[in-house]
Amino acid sequence: MSKRRLVARAPAESTVEATHLVLPPDTNAVGTAFGGRIMQWMDIAAAIAAMRHCGGIAVTVAVDDLHFANPIHLGDVVVVRARVNYAGTSSMEVGVRVEREGRSGTASTHCLSAYFTFVAVNARGRPIPVPPLRPETEDDRRRFANAEQRRKRRLALRG
Amino acid sequence: MSKRRLVARAPAESTVEATHLVLPPDTNAVGTAFGGRIMQWMDIAAAIAAMRHCGGIAVTVAVDDLHFANPIHLGDVVVVRARVNYAGTSSMEVGVRVEREGRSGTASTHCLSAYFTFVAVNARGRPIPVPPLRPETEDDRRRFANAEQRRKRRLALRG
Amino acid sequence: MSKRRLVARAPAESTVEATHLVLPPDTNAVGTAFGGRIMQWMDIAAAIAAMRHCGGIAVTVAVDDLHFANPIHLGDVVVVRARVNYAGTSSMEVGVRVEREGRSGTASTHCLSAYFTFVAVNARGRPIPVPPLRPETEDDRRRFANAEQRRKRRLALRG
Amino acid sequence: MSKRRLVARAPAESTVEATHLVLPPDTNAVGTAFGGRIMQWMDIAAAIAAMRHCGGIAVTVAVDDLHFANPIHLGDVVVVRARVNYAGTSSMEVGVRVEREGRSGTASTHCLSAYFTFVAVNARGRPIPVPPLRPETEDDRRRFANAEQRRKRRLALRG
Amino acid sequence: MSKRRLVARAPAESTVEATHLVLPPDTNAVGTAFGGRIMQWMDIAAAIAAMRHCGGIAVTVAVDDLHFANPIHLGDVVVVRARVNYAGTSSMEVGVRVEREGRSGTASTHCLSAYFTFVAVNARGRPIPVPPLRPETEDDRRRFANAEQRRKRRLALRG
Amino acid sequence: MSKRRLVARAPAESTVEATHLVLPPDTNAVGTAFGGRIMQWMDIAAAIAAMRHCGGIAVTVAVDDLHFANPIHLGDVVVVRARVNYAGTSSMEVGVRVEREGRSGTASTHCLSAYFTFVAVNARGRPIPVPPLRPETEDDRRRFANAEQRRKRRLALRG
Repeated sequence: MSKRRLVARAPAESTVEATHLVLPPDTNAVGTAFGGRIMQWMDIAAAIAAMRHCGGIAVTVAVDDLHFANPIHLGDVVVVRARVNYAGTSSMEVGVRVEREGRSGTASTHCLSAYFTFVAVNARGRPIPVPPLRPETEDDRRRFANAEQRRKRRLALRG
Repeated sequence: MSKRRLVARAPAESTVEATHLVLPPDTNAVGTAFGGRIMQWMDIAAAIAAMRHCGGIAVTVAVDDLHFANPIHLGDVVVVRARVNYAGTSSMEVGVRVEREGRSGTASTHCLSAYFTFVAVNARGRPIPVPPLRPETEDDRRRFANAEQRRKRRLALRG
Repeated sequence: MSKRRLVARAPAESTVEATHLVLPPDTNAVGTAFGGRIMQWMDIAAAIAAMRHCGGIAVTVAVDDLHFANPIHLGDVVVVRARVNYAGTSSMEVGVRVEREGRSGTASTHCLSAYFTFVAVNARGRPIPVPPLRPETEDDRRRFANAEQRRKRRLALRG
Repeated sequence: MSKRRLVARAPAESTVEATHLVLPPDTNAVGTAFGGRIMQWMDIAAAIAAMRHCGGIAVTVAVDDLHFANPIHLGDVVVVRARVNYAGTSSMEVGVRVEREGRSGTASTHCLSAYFTFVAVNARGRPIPVPPLRPETEDDRRRFANAEQRRKRRLALRG
Repeated sequence: MSKRRLVARAPAESTVEATHLVLPPDTNAVGTAFGGRIMQWMDIAAAIAAMRHCGGIAVTVAVDDLHFANPIHLGDVVVVRARVNYAGTSSMEVGVRVEREGRSGTASTHCLSAYFTFVAVNARGRPIPVPPLRPETEDDRRRFANAEQRRKRRLALRG
Repeated sequence: MSKRRLVARAPAESTVEATHLVLPPDTNAVGTAFGGRIMQWMDIAAAIAAMRHCGGIAVTVAVDDLHFANPIHLGDVVVVRARVNYAGTSSMEVGVRVEREGRSGTASTHCLSAYFTFVAVNARGRPIPVPPLRPETEDDRRRFANAEQRRKRRLALRG
């Protein structure tokens, strides 16, 4: 673990945007996107955000409640955004937000959001330290504090 | 909605087993399966269980907390099991359990479990009634009661 | 090849069930599943059964006649079941059976069955010994005897 | 079924060549191509040959014995060739041959061959008449006669 | 074609960012991403930009010279950015830029750029009018003028 | 780099034919094949031609203008043909031609053609010498001369 990689990073440095087009293999017999496909897109975007923050490999260890507020359909453009909210010793919480656009182009509908927890690992899959997160804006600090609360709740539930 | 489809069904009638082999496109640079891929496999197995119960199309509306207790690797055989725990008016809770086998064959490790909520829909995507669930064994009744509690908690959190 | 792996195993120990949902990329222009896609699902299920029996890598060396008795369609749930019928020195015969369910849920139609022959190999692709098969039930013994006959016929045809 | 489509066609008119590169998702943990993947490539090539002959949709109804004489590996170039050997009232036999080339380029190894039977269908999946096959060369006539023998044997086995 | 859809749009309204992780099926035997895979990612991002601008379906009609200045490897994070540079009567030019990040996270390397031309089509695949592009910044105007020059050159070459 | 691999080869030795069936995941909401999918098929066929010529790994470094003269649809049979036109010190130009057949079988429409440039690389991705190309027919010599002109133009544009 080099010194350089443990220099603190701002949330803005790891923000990910991944735009997808919903194609036939992503949908069921009535043209609705499978929940599992959307979760897969969320996990990849979140993994990239975590990898950007820690500068190495990151593996998913937990996902909080997911609630699909609005269905996603064949032909929809889906934008998945991910950013690191919190970094502990070797774990990171990544917030992921999914929106879809209709065919008419500009208007977007929020579909779901979730919190993914990742752990940085070395080539043998062992947890390794991650750089600290350096919140810069008021929004960054609010997210950091909320993520810290969620982390305590998760540890309490599993402890 | 025909009468026939609303005849009560036992959990055993919708139990799904889906066995997968973890291949290179399912894994990251250190040979660990992506969390999103496992979630996709869980969602498909759960959707099949829900479709068996309701006799039509079912879409994912919620997934409770996921916690990856044990990593899954390239070459592992993964068994995903899903069964309907509870059925309400138009929604169903499906329990999903993921185990992996090592190369040596028989011993299995529990990797994660989760609860998926599905809604039965018609061809226009509108919710439709689902058949009642008829718990048969002691285990069925325990699962039904627990699922009912989780459902109340979910509604309380979102209400 | 360790002693442990050559301990005899019962057919029940390697039985595989793999449930699939037929999606658009699996079907042709009239919504019928491609034969090749079904064969691929059969081969993977059979390979997992063979790997479970031999505790290592197994590669397909032969497939007996396939006859698609009933077409499989977009949206069908397909259940592929595989089990080891016979084990020789380094080869295994795996029986595979494919059924589809309609949308209404419970009733299943037998679509096709086939016999796959696998050989256990080491990391350099060389054949290695496989554990003996220990038939337990009357059905196990009947399958074993029939598989032995098929094996003789195959060797005669190719010799 | 238009007259035009029932004009006899020569085997050369439906000959298919499909060249593939074996990639990571096509192979197991020791870099050998899955039998099921090769079967899928064979089925698609055979379906295209049958579609070219009948001028419409064709579905796989049977595959004769497959014997993998030589393994296929990651990075190999695989050439799949298919041609219609025989046409009956609504069914066609397609011969498929698979060869692989090594990295050094030109030398090819025969890996396996098989006979696929297809039936021409209309948009509702019902069998429809296919054009007669018009053998042109000595080789065409020999293949036609052999296919006719295999067809009789298949009908005898299933009747 | 409704009036509403022909209201002029700024380039910023159709800007797309699509972040990908290079996985094993995207790469050859020495771990370099296939050019064709990168082109596919570029085409999808460009198609989404064109669809956002025209509010409907857009199909690729031309791609200008592509030059892969820097190779892309297994495990790389690749960011594809696309924006509409120019809109004519029914065609649009979309500029696409591909960058890769190394494992260390932040530093990015420009890999290639290209110009894609799309045509807006109706449900029968016929060209339909697209909204005008309304350049807002100095950069927007420079891109518009350059795209207009490229368009004249393309028409001259094909005329 | 062995002597053997640098023996001159004729264009006929590296000619590739790859036949594809356009399936739902290859098409957009109106059933037209994505340009990016066709480009991916072209790149794989071209890479195989280049690999056959050089006897090793080849990576795409450039693609000349692409112009989709005719759309390709769901259910179409697409034939991609590739051949080495020119070989320099370590680079090769491959010509690729795409045709589609309609459902009626025999008649083919030219859809697009393009020139791909590949470089032969060793296991570390470094350029290595390629065998000379030995034009045999009048057509081979014409293609070689034209490719040489295109190469000069490309170098001039990039120099």
